[in-house]
Amino acid sequence: MTQQRFGYLGPEATFTEAALLKLDEARGAERVPMPNVLVALDAVRTGDIDAAVVPIENSVEGGVPATLDALTSDIPLQIVREIVIPVKFVLAAPSGVELADITAYSTHPHAEAQTRRFTGQYLPDAAYLPAGSTAAAAAGLSAEAIDRGAGQDRAGQAEYQAAICPLLAAERYGLNVLADDIGDVRTAVTRFVLVRKPGPVAPATGADKTTLVAGLRSERPGALLELLEQFAVRGVNLTRIESRPTGDGLGLYQFSLDVDGHIDEARVAEALAGVHRTSRHVRFLGSYPRDDREASTIDAQNTDDAFAQANDWLTRIKGDTRG
Amino acid sequence: MTQQRFGYLGPEATFTEAALLKLDEARGAERVPMPNVLVALDAVRTGDIDAAVVPIENSVEGGVPATLDALTSDIPLQIVREIVIPVKFVLAAPSGVELADITAYSTHPHAEAQTRRFTGQYLPDAAYLPAGSTAAAAAGLSAEAIDRGAGQDRAGQAEYQAAICPLLAAERYGLNVLADDIGDVRTAVTRFVLVRKPGPVAPATGADKTTLVAGLRSERPGALLELLEQFAVRGVNLTRIESRPTGDGLGLYQFSLDVDGHIDEARVAEALAGVHRTSRHVRFLGSYPRDDREASTIDAQNTDDAFAQANDWLTRIKGDTRG
Amino acid sequence: MTQQRFGYLGPEATFTEAALLKLDEARGAERVPMPNVLVALDAVRTGDIDAAVVPIENSVEGGVPATLDALTSDIPLQIVREIVIPVKFVLAAPSGVELADITAYSTHPHAEAQTRRFTGQYLPDAAYLPAGSTAAAAAGLSAEAIDRGAGQDRAGQAEYQAAICPLLAAERYGLNVLADDIGDVRTAVTRFVLVRKPGPVAPATGADKTTLVAGLRSERPGALLELLEQFAVRGVNLTRIESRPTGDGLGLYQFSLDVDGHIDEARVAEALAGVHRTSRHVRFLGSYPRDDREASTIDAQNTDDAFAQANDWLTRIKGDTRG
Amino acid sequence: MTQQRFGYLGPEATFTEAALLKLDEARGAERVPMPNVLVALDAVRTGDIDAAVVPIENSVEGGVPATLDALTSDIPLQIVREIVIPVKFVLAAPSGVELADITAYSTHPHAEAQTRRFTGQYLPDAAYLPAGSTAAAAAGLSAEAIDRGAGQDRAGQAEYQAAICPLLAAERYGLNVLADDIGDVRTAVTRFVLVRKPGPVAPATGADKTTLVAGLRSERPGALLELLEQFAVRGVNLTRIESRPTGDGLGLYQFSLDVDGHIDEARVAEALAGVHRTSRHVRFLGSYPRDDREASTIDAQNTDDAFAQANDWLTRIKGDTRG
Repeated sequence: MTQQRFGYLGPEATFTEAALLKLDEARGAERVPMPNVLVALDAVRTGDIDAAVVPIENSVEGGVPATLDALTSDIPLQIVREIVIPVKFVLAAPSGVELADITAYSTHPHAEAQTRRFTGQYLPDAAYLPAGSTAAAAAGLSAEAIDRGAGQDRAGQAEYQAAICPLLAAERYGLNVLADDIGDVRTAVTRFVLVRKPGPVAPATGADKTTLVAGLRSERPGALLELLEQFAVRGVNLTRIESRPTGDGLGLYQFSLDVDGHIDEARVAEALAGVHRTSRHVRFLGSYPRDDREASTIDAQNTDDAFAQANDWLTRIKGDTRG
Repeated sequence: MTQQRFGYLGPEATFTEAALLKLDEARGAERVPMPNVLVALDAVRTGDIDAAVVPIENSVEGGVPATLDALTSDIPLQIVREIVIPVKFVLAAPSGVELADITAYSTHPHAEAQTRRFTGQYLPDAAYLPAGSTAAAAAGLSAEAIDRGAGQDRAGQAEYQAAICPLLAAERYGLNVLADDIGDVRTAVTRFVLVRKPGPVAPATGADKTTLVAGLRSERPGALLELLEQFAVRGVNLTRIESRPTGDGLGLYQFSLDVDGHIDEARVAEALAGVHRTSRHVRFLGSYPRDDREASTIDAQNTDDAFAQANDWLTRIKGDTRG
Repeated sequence: MTQQRFGYLGPEATFTEAALLKLDEARGAERVPMPNVLVALDAVRTGDIDAAVVPIENSVEGGVPATLDALTSDIPLQIVREIVIPVKFVLAAPSGVELADITAYSTHPHAEAQTRRFTGQYLPDAAYLPAGSTAAAAAGLSAEAIDRGAGQDRAGQAEYQAAICPLLAAERYGLNVLADDIGDVRTAVTRFVLVRKPGPVAPATGADKTTLVAGLRSERPGALLELLEQFAVRGVNLTRIESRPTGDGLGLYQFSLDVDGHIDEARVAEALAGVHRTSRHVRFLGSYPRDDREASTIDAQNTDDAFAQANDWLTRIKGDTRG
Repeated sequence: MTQQRFGYLGPEATFTEAALLKLDEARGAERVPMPNVLVALDAVRTGDIDAAVVPIENSVEGGVPATLDALTSDIPLQIVREIVIPVKFVLAAPSGVELADITAYSTHPHAEAQTRRFTGQYLPDAAYLPAGSTAAAAAGLSAEAIDRGAGQDRAGQAEYQAAICPLLAAERYGLNVLADDIGDVRTAVTRFVLVRKPGPVAPATGADKTTLVAGLRSERPGALLELLEQFAVRGVNLTRIESRPTGDGLGLYQFSLDVDGHIDEARVAEALAGVHRTSRHVRFLGSYPRDDREASTIDAQNTDDAFAQANDWLTRIKGDTRG
């Protein structure tokens, strides 16, 4: 059997590779860094890679709008897994460097923005050098980089002595961790998804999510409400909603939605069918296990049993009305 | 084959019998007057009669709340036809009686209430004598009644000379029509239904109604809204709604509803199943042709075709997600 | 000061007079029986009487549709009180008559329908004679009636020996109560309202109802839903809803509604204003104390305080947005 | 009078500075580039700058989630203007460089992702060098940069010969435009807002937007629906919605919303008050003119007039009920 190839939004050692490493099914697979989300998803479409891990919510290093839009247009793809990664930054430096030695540090601008409480307190006088990614900042401090003179000024001095990056990057590039979990918001997480070519949906696990994109049929007040009622009347809970411009000006909108539950569950299937009937267009992007394995809470009136009983009743009353 | 027996809310020659006479299927059947709605429906339940015509909306001579409640409780029954009758009153009198001769007239109190503009103008000085029904008022003026001295005072004088009644009653009792269509509201109608024991629902005609009764699961504001959303999200139009006390004090309510469409139509079936899931109880009372034969207007998104296409799409995306 | 005149749907000694007798404000007033609801309400309009008690829900002796329609059309009137009366029937007979002596009994047909379990068990062989009202049945057994020979056949025999009527009627006409509370449904009640010419609304008591009639602007599915949302978004609970034909055929509907609360309460006022904006027409019929004095349960988010705080916030953010 | 200081998400010559240059009120002001959105907004809070232009939707160079979150937390700020900028990329190079000379080009990764159709066709063999911003890519090609040897390898060769950037950057750094409007999506736009310290809201212009953030009180299905109903029942149209995690794990959500209209308009004010009453928390972020000056379409039933008439009616019926 050929080795599977799993792409991810590169470079390596960022949170996206950390997400990929969390997947059992990717064990033993080749991990292929991709320059951006569009390239990653196109590589899945062409078959160059078997699957790709891309960020879909709260990404530190970008890509979320691109992911949402890329999944909505072009040849369909399917989300088959969700991976939620705590966004934990470390302060990393080469062996021998202490906090007091740091006159400059580097990281991705978004990471810099999210660690300002720490840097304000402990590195108030250090300069900040933007990097293309958190991992690139770490990589610039690796022995190999230093050997080839990268990141050094004309006088041979290192331009910076520390990086703010994921633990994975510190480990990968042989750096010491000077401080752990230095983000301003301790509970921050990023949500990634594993995307494949469309295929049969994996069976429900009882703790699933379903992602879709739908366009409203009209722009009058209440049209979005009517879309959401398709979910509410079947007791389907929304966990994410984002209006996205359709790309034809700011006027027309579509909605990217995550809902609790699996297309094999009656309440979700009927809600999706309702959206199919009443929206301008709808794209199903997959039903897949929740990363937190937290089972959906379903009211007694919206369980598969309740749907089955309602259908039995329908059959009965069509025959003899003994309701 | 035995002759069918059709009951109706009597006495004979009221609007209810007129409704029964409008039914093709009742031609040649025995017509059995019933003293009240409960007796009529129980006679259907016991098989003493094959079907019964009872008023369900805007009845002149009562019975509507009784009909609604009797259909909701006890052994189930099924509405199989709707008959709408214009409420046209005539002023009827025995041969030889002119308007000027009338010193007293009789009719059912509700009919009296609905003809006061006419009586105020043309019979301002005539006395009004209540009768148990419009037809009874007419019957009291028939040759046969006069022969046996009914409705005459001790002096042998007729207690009244004219009746306000349906045309049917004037004809049945051999009376002349002195004035036609004398109701204050010219467009008034009464809606009757033909009720049978439960059996297979007749096929959809494209112009049907469905009647049901449902009890809310909770009394918080918005619970009724949630019931009605089950219809709205499938584009099912309500044509009648009445809250009815459940009989356990004024606190708990159930709702008697007529909706446009037939249980064999996907949008109605799915809405009914939704009500079955989400309400405390629901009783299906029948899908039957509208008396006015006016086809339901159905949005493109709620036709049987739209439902079938949505289901095809569901099947497809469960297999391969090429949405 | 002149004595007030309070009309009621007659005849005297029916449940409607019982309702009137429950009103403190009617003590000492002249009680005027009215032949029907229209006459009663017109007498209020013309000033012939000061107020009228009419049935509005579950009346034994009719009048409810007439009341709803009469309040909706013509010169406006105002509901100022609600009176709920338990529908308790008694079997009453002149002194000396025992159960075993009864070969025939009389009452209003609706009352007969509601006491069939009792009559089936205890008077299985007795004949039933319809009466125009429960009280009329009782009146026909009074000493005075018997004296003048009313209700007797040509042979001088009483046509019936017992009446099914309210306790009030038994007392009024000097009859013995042979059996008490003989209705099939022990908890049945009728709701009456006291109607006056429009005037300032009495202050809220904390346990009030508001009655209105509104016509939908459109007949598409969802239009009723939009009307009810005006109440739901302000947490206003519906306690009664009835669709009523507008009188221009069965096509156009309006809705007669009771809601929990008083027009002086912010949530009710704002909901009414919303209905005024969005419906074809609306008629306010009054805010008045609930007969059961049961205080409305109002979510914290819909109290007058919550409305006041929201308005304070609005004022503040318009000035400086420190939300 | 002191010169005003307007910050913007730097560096200079990106689309954000282009947005700032579109503002009449910023003419003559000092323009201060800010390293990230948080710094920009904090500088407004401390008074270091008078206002800041930050991206709020579809930004090429990031910042949108940071903007949404920064506006939601910390000391309140107020959006006072909206600026929509078409995202038009140009291919720019120093004088003398032709398309055929380009062996490498630079730009921000997001810009690279959005111009791949063009680069695939016209620069298929050119290498791509990521830059921190589109403007930085252009700046690296300026005469001044070349003079000081920036962007050149150790052999003194330029690392890249062209930049993909806004027209503004090409002009600012003295570059020639080799190709215009080379984005894959010709109609792409970015939405920026001008943010100030809270103060009185400018009067309505008839073509306004209002931005707010609200947290749901409960997570049951239907809670979001209830939030949106506050807008729908007053005919207020949503133009943007995004669920945002509250930062306490992925479980709790709040919603960032743009609606059509101004807080001085009755329908918007009442909707906001409704949200204030029914949501866990709400932050008003400003009412401000729409960039496109397109007047809101308001149904007759939701105009200020309709609200005023409804209030007049309320006053009238509280007094005398002549509805």
